[in-house]
Amino acid sequence: MRISELSRHSGIPVATLKFYIREGMLPRGISSSPTSAEYGDDHLVRLRLIQALSEVRGLPLAKVRDILAIIDDPDSGETNDPVHTMGEAVAALPPYVEADSDSPRAIAALDAIGFTYDTDYAAVAQLDSAIRAVENAGLPWDTNVLRRYADAMTEVARQELAPVPEQTAADAVTYAVLGTALFEPVILALRRLAHHHLLVQQRDEEHEPTASTS
Amino acid sequence: MRISELSRHSGIPVATLKFYIREGMLPRGISSSPTSAEYGDDHLVRLRLIQALSEVRGLPLAKVRDILAIIDDPDSGETNDPVHTMGEAVAALPPYVEADSDSPRAIAALDAIGFTYDTDYAAVAQLDSAIRAVENAGLPWDTNVLRRYADAMTEVARQELAPVPEQTAADAVTYAVLGTALFEPVILALRRLAHHHLLVQQRDEEHEPTASTS
Repeated sequence: MRISELSRHSGIPVATLKFYIREGMLPRGISSSPTSAEYGDDHLVRLRLIQALSEVRGLPLAKVRDILAIIDDPDSGETNDPVHTMGEAVAALPPYVEADSDSPRAIAALDAIGFTYDTDYAAVAQLDSAIRAVENAGLPWDTNVLRRYADAMTEVARQELAPVPEQTAADAVTYAVLGTALFEPVILALRRLAHHHLLVQQRDEEHEPTASTS
Repeated sequence: MRISELSRHSGIPVATLKFYIREGMLPRGISSSPTSAEYGDDHLVRLRLIQALSEVRGLPLAKVRDILAIIDDPDSGETNDPVHTMGEAVAALPPYVEADSDSPRAIAALDAIGFTYDTDYAAVAQLDSAIRAVENAGLPWDTNVLRRYADAMTEVARQELAPVPEQTAADAVTYAVLGTALFEPVILALRRLAHHHLLVQQRDEEHEPTASTS
């Protein structure tokens, strides 16, 4: 299809499509004449991904570009190393905290739960900043609270990383990078909905006399 | 202390402190003369909370004000109802998705896991938008994936809502509202760190021959 049709199918203005092409976020179409190019379904798929990251996830375009570059060329680092690729992806995601070699709260927490960590990995500074906010707000923060969240997230991560036999290495990287970005809003919405569900249950139990008290 | 000292102790400019007072986010000091007022430790505590919500959590000031208003007067709704109060708090938190009575993906998911829900509750539209992004990115979305996250978050929410005997009702609301806002970055950072921890373990296991193969 021509770029005007790609615009109509995707609902994205032609000027925006040309911007994505210039920025390397959308591959060029195949030249069909000196003045026009052909676009295909792959382009529509890529546009849906850009929209998922920018509109739904709310990432700035520069960060969307970083994540697309990681997916398109996961080996751009020195080594074909998933630990390195995931580190790059996490650094492209909010919260954008200054990497800080001195993250005392995060390091104490990670030591307490026995995680292997690397202070260059952006999530260490992210955790440190998150714990500082919890403490500043006067919320409880101790090993029990830490374990509540660490145990739940370790179990989630274990299931997420369970090898999928038919997956190629490139698919695994795409899944890991996009999964990190796009399952986060799902997780937070479900926690909020679980609170709602449990609070409604508690309220109904208080208002309905139970067999033993009636 | 005078406002100049409050500024020095908190590191926040006097002009910003006056703005917080005008906006009702920081209580006025106690007038000690027609031209000056006294501030105390309560003011420093409140300023740390504002910083936690605005700087670390990254909330816009209007939303910080909404959350402080909920904490200060949890009964401002018709009823002293934690379900209602939590609903207000969740609506003040990102992602700011248009409330949509038509959230087919979220409703299908909530029915599948047997949650009680109310389509006016902001997290329903938030979940719908999050699932749409997952689907648009081509990530797997089925009942198994849903349960992975729902089970983990139900267990977390159950522990978070376990009644604390010495807690007053007002403390419980503060804890619930701030906990919703401020434990979210902790949860996401720990998931990212769990991925890192497990990926490093996997890599080391691949590189070190095990007893059975050596």
